[in-house]
Amino acid sequence: MLAPLKHLLYDSIEMRTSLTFLTDFGWGSPYPAAMKAVVSGIADLKLIDITHDIPPQDIREGAFALWSVVPYFVAGTIHCAVVDPGVGTDRSGLILRAGGHYFVGPDNGLLSAAAAKLGDVKAYKITDSKYIATSVSATFHGRDIFAPIAAHIGNGVEIRDLASPIDKWKRLKVDFESGAFDEEQETWIGEIISIDHFGNFITNISGQLISDFIEYGETLEIKSTSFTAISAYQKSYGYVAQGEPLLLINSVGLLEFARNSPSSRMGLELNVGDEVRLCRHG
Amino acid sequence: MLAPLKHLLYDSIEMRTSLTFLTDFGWGSPYPAAMKAVVSGIADLKLIDITHDIPPQDIREGAFALWSVVPYFVAGTIHCAVVDPGVGTDRSGLILRAGGHYFVGPDNGLLSAAAAKLGDVKAYKITDSKYIATSVSATFHGRDIFAPIAAHIGNGVEIRDLASPIDKWKRLKVDFESGAFDEEQETWIGEIISIDHFGNFITNISGQLISDFIEYGETLEIKSTSFTAISAYQKSYGYVAQGEPLLLINSVGLLEFARNSPSSRMGLELNVGDEVRLCRHG
Amino acid sequence: MLAPLKHLLYDSIEMRTSLTFLTDFGWGSPYPAAMKAVVSGIADLKLIDITHDIPPQDIREGAFALWSVVPYFVAGTIHCAVVDPGVGTDRSGLILRAGGHYFVGPDNGLLSAAAAKLGDVKAYKITDSKYIATSVSATFHGRDIFAPIAAHIGNGVEIRDLASPIDKWKRLKVDFESGAFDEEQETWIGEIISIDHFGNFITNISGQLISDFIEYGETLEIKSTSFTAISAYQKSYGYVAQGEPLLLINSVGLLEFARNSPSSRMGLELNVGDEVRLCRHG
Repeated sequence: MLAPLKHLLYDSIEMRTSLTFLTDFGWGSPYPAAMKAVVSGIADLKLIDITHDIPPQDIREGAFALWSVVPYFVAGTIHCAVVDPGVGTDRSGLILRAGGHYFVGPDNGLLSAAAAKLGDVKAYKITDSKYIATSVSATFHGRDIFAPIAAHIGNGVEIRDLASPIDKWKRLKVDFESGAFDEEQETWIGEIISIDHFGNFITNISGQLISDFIEYGETLEIKSTSFTAISAYQKSYGYVAQGEPLLLINSVGLLEFARNSPSSRMGLELNVGDEVRLCRHG
Repeated sequence: MLAPLKHLLYDSIEMRTSLTFLTDFGWGSPYPAAMKAVVSGIADLKLIDITHDIPPQDIREGAFALWSVVPYFVAGTIHCAVVDPGVGTDRSGLILRAGGHYFVGPDNGLLSAAAAKLGDVKAYKITDSKYIATSVSATFHGRDIFAPIAAHIGNGVEIRDLASPIDKWKRLKVDFESGAFDEEQETWIGEIISIDHFGNFITNISGQLISDFIEYGETLEIKSTSFTAISAYQKSYGYVAQGEPLLLINSVGLLEFARNSPSSRMGLELNVGDEVRLCRHG
Repeated sequence: MLAPLKHLLYDSIEMRTSLTFLTDFGWGSPYPAAMKAVVSGIADLKLIDITHDIPPQDIREGAFALWSVVPYFVAGTIHCAVVDPGVGTDRSGLILRAGGHYFVGPDNGLLSAAAAKLGDVKAYKITDSKYIATSVSATFHGRDIFAPIAAHIGNGVEIRDLASPIDKWKRLKVDFESGAFDEEQETWIGEIISIDHFGNFITNISGQLISDFIEYGETLEIKSTSFTAISAYQKSYGYVAQGEPLLLINSVGLLEFARNSPSSRMGLELNVGDEVRLCRHG
């Protein structure tokens, strides 16, 4: 009963029913709950944590996490993300609209990649002072500005009542799918963009760049400045023995250098930002 | 108003309103949120995290966590659990029905103990391709198969439309209550099955095996291959001085070797899987 | 539709729609989910985690986390908090009512500061045995007593049916805003009451004690028994260079000694409970 009603109230394309949170506050801190407190006092939305364990001030890692999951939410979802080293300075507050989703957070690159992935991005600078906390702290805009703005969007408030259209906003320098294939040299060139919970290395080489040229079971040579390794390209972890390395296309469509083992970092001196080059072996 | 309506739609025994998640993805990863995104796009359910910090690929620890809490949920609850080293291989996807609960996840032993505790288990192999993602990744069935299947169960879809009955499914080798009492030798024999957040050692010796024979305040000798200790059997932590060890029946009904202290592992060389033997002291 | 109805059922001041959880069980443990299971079987409430990573048995840190966020929740919110070294002993179960909020947990000081901050505290000792688990474990009152009591409060059960009024309950020794300004010596005297996720030191010196006397950009000398530092007082982190220390009023209105850097503890030998003294520098 509730759903069709909401549907009519807004428009025929989207339902604003879910609000996600992503921060670097840490799961041990009470601050994500402060944001949820504010939201719950304004709107009746389904609250979904993406994560609160983004490394402190690591905008790029936060952007990658958003980019990884946002496409799986339905249109109308509102994403409130806060990794905000510039809080309290003159950096702007940003609303992005893309693919029917809403993004609310600091204008520092955190939101740009996820929105671009959804396509057709419209940007707005938060100008309002009516829909935010009456007293705004200098160090917690997540609670005092972004959470109430996101909640009011969830209530159906129009973006034009909260923010002004802008043409320029901050984007990250890194593109999460910008790895390339050099056909002449038959070499894939990319970089490590994240190291996951299992210790696997995620590259910015799109899986399609690999799957168009290589079959499961073929072997590749991987080179960085600090090491060279030989590894088979496989469908999934379970296709190699326990402890063995492999290359695979991971669940967000990127080439990953992994090991079938609950281990960490594989003993390799490989860091986020390091270049990797791959070529066919033998 | 909503509740009775739902009640009528399904049947008179259960309400499918809550969906739990248990994974080894880590709270720092965005992947649990990807599963919630998928579920939220399909069904309006209360989403409850059991935990996402199961040690990577530790099926047994995941099974124990499920086993510990599942009985406290009402009938009709759907449990979606993913600790899945075999993802992308030919291991099956499993649905278990037990005590009015539904379990969805890989067929690798993760779900079996919790379902068995609820009794009267019926098992099904996921065969459907209509209710899952149109493009299934090889490494994240949690998002592409188990989450949508769980959500559709929450919507009242019949199991027969999702899966086929099976007679055999994987069970764990360990039984969480299989510790024994040797009456002749007056010895309890069990093993460490988990070490909790407070550093306490949980055994597979059922509390009843102790409480039938021992009074609070009596003293027991505990032996493993690496140590021998003397400890009082008490009702709860606060009955011994700060830092002192004790034996107690914990909140899931198992004998626990603990210390009244916010410490870790008590300095003991005692690991999951180690045998322990207890007998009356003095 | 639902909301006005609920409104009528209770009273015109509050809506009992949200229930928060704070524990020291750890995000890795399944025990918070056991509490949510019990609650979900009794009442249809929005469940919000404050945190489950309070250091084991650290009542003071739990109390500070509650104190930090509770004011941002609306009246009618129920807070169920469990940091409970005395579980199973004769410590009482407590309900506090303050500012239209409800607090449920052990009577050990955990709840007192947050309730006092909301003002006009009324206290009750849990006496009921009808609204709790039929079999109460000696080690997990969070699941067996506090969760069901909190859920029944959420359902509109009157406090008098659950508990008896009391005049005395446990309070913490520390007051989170008791730092002082010695006008004669022009010195602020306080102590470190928490160290946050970013490694910043939070004092119990109220921001107003500072902002009434000092302008942004002025410099202060900070002294503890183990070190002396010189630091500027600024509006927010971004006003000093990366890696530089600063003093600021944080988002809960307390003086904080911080560094603009995703670092930890700033290399300082400064602990919770340490006294700090500040005076104008130059």
